[in-house]
Amino acid sequence: MKCLKMILQYDGTNYNGWQIQTGQAKSRTIQGTIQEALYKLTGEKIKVTAAGRTDAGVHARGQVINFKTESTIPVSRFPKALNSCLPPDIVAVAAEQVDEQFHARYSAKRKLYRYTIDVSPYPDVFRRRYAYHVPYSLKLSRMEEAASYIEGNHDFRSFCAAGSSAKNFVRTVEMCRVSKRDNIIEIDVMANGFLYHMARIIVGTLLEVGKGKIKPEDVKRIIAAKNRDAAGPTAPSHGLCLEKVEY
Amino acid sequence: MKCLKMILQYDGTNYNGWQIQTGQAKSRTIQGTIQEALYKLTGEKIKVTAAGRTDAGVHARGQVINFKTESTIPVSRFPKALNSCLPPDIVAVAAEQVDEQFHARYSAKRKLYRYTIDVSPYPDVFRRRYAYHVPYSLKLSRMEEAASYIEGNHDFRSFCAAGSSAKNFVRTVEMCRVSKRDNIIEIDVMANGFLYHMARIIVGTLLEVGKGKIKPEDVKRIIAAKNRDAAGPTAPSHGLCLEKVEY
Repeated sequence: MKCLKMILQYDGTNYNGWQIQTGQAKSRTIQGTIQEALYKLTGEKIKVTAAGRTDAGVHARGQVINFKTESTIPVSRFPKALNSCLPPDIVAVAAEQVDEQFHARYSAKRKLYRYTIDVSPYPDVFRRRYAYHVPYSLKLSRMEEAASYIEGNHDFRSFCAAGSSAKNFVRTVEMCRVSKRDNIIEIDVMANGFLYHMARIIVGTLLEVGKGKIKPEDVKRIIAAKNRDAAGPTAPSHGLCLEKVEY
Repeated sequence: MKCLKMILQYDGTNYNGWQIQTGQAKSRTIQGTIQEALYKLTGEKIKVTAAGRTDAGVHARGQVINFKTESTIPVSRFPKALNSCLPPDIVAVAAEQVDEQFHARYSAKRKLYRYTIDVSPYPDVFRRRYAYHVPYSLKLSRMEEAASYIEGNHDFRSFCAAGSSAKNFVRTVEMCRVSKRDNIIEIDVMANGFLYHMARIIVGTLLEVGKGKIKPEDVKRIIAAKNRDAAGPTAPSHGLCLEKVEY
């Protein structure tokens, strides 16, 4: 029996998120699709665990999963073998053997999410599945200032959607950075953990700042409120991508 | 009555090319979709003419069309109005009034096509619809040399697919350039006109050079042969994009 760690890329557009939904037997999820592919490949019913349980429509460039298998396929050939059983919008890009203690989520030290905003007057068709189109002029320096207040060790209850099972809302945002190139704004958020919808609520709040609806300093007040209603709206899922997980 | 010139972007993945196919009434084309959108917007049955009649699966970032309309919608607002009637994979990005002599295809001085190749070991999921995945090491300097022999005023019969209605096969390729950044190779071809499948046969031939199957100098022999069988295969359509048309 081997314990494997794999890195996945996926286009989340056509999936109802990472996690298999009990009850919604027919909804297509990333986890379900991978487990089916593993079954086709190995004949085993394998349960896979992911670092980030991404929402419906969210993408990944560096999702990490772990699972156990009796397969004799050499580890170095596992990604290619699995890809032959996967649809083209999910791709395994690396695999390595890990010890039994490794857990994709609990062992993770930090995760990096990137949110992409297309500020072109008309949406870029080639980015429409991966970027949120906001055809307004956004005040970048104000968004940068607001992002700096997100960084640090805070109680992020204001940035947690209802339905979360979290009991402790304190997380450390090691980096929250806004950058622009041509008509694309990227918001990178790196943290030791993310609450339910946290990255998207941070982005929704920074967009309120960029549109001039609230001031950068208001972010401090929003954090202190410890109340979801204080923060901005949840930005749409299709702009978000899980870029990297570090262990 | 106004004559309009418009610039379009489209993701060609889900279309059977630019041109309405007589006989295949049900096949979805870019031209048909735009004419339907114009009908919804203006109530007029408008015929649109394109600079490049792109094949099934080919994309455009700078397709140019022209058409006549009685509509009173101000020209500056026309793209946004039309976009509200178009599916999200076709976007009008600019419009201007032109005189009646303007013809998107016949008036064009040159067109630029770009072909994108993904040489990552595993296909990049976010580029899979827009880049041809070639997981081999390609000899870039040899491809560059081969591309230089494509440039110039030649009889391109060897690079013209059967089914073309062309009588004159002489075209001027003003630029044929190969460049690489990270795992992406781009082949830019600018010419005063393109024969049927010409850009894709040029790319297919340059790929044969990159893989070491033929030598860069062989391109001279292939041009001289004036025979389609002398050139390489036709590269798949989804890597090709009509970038720009100049008048």
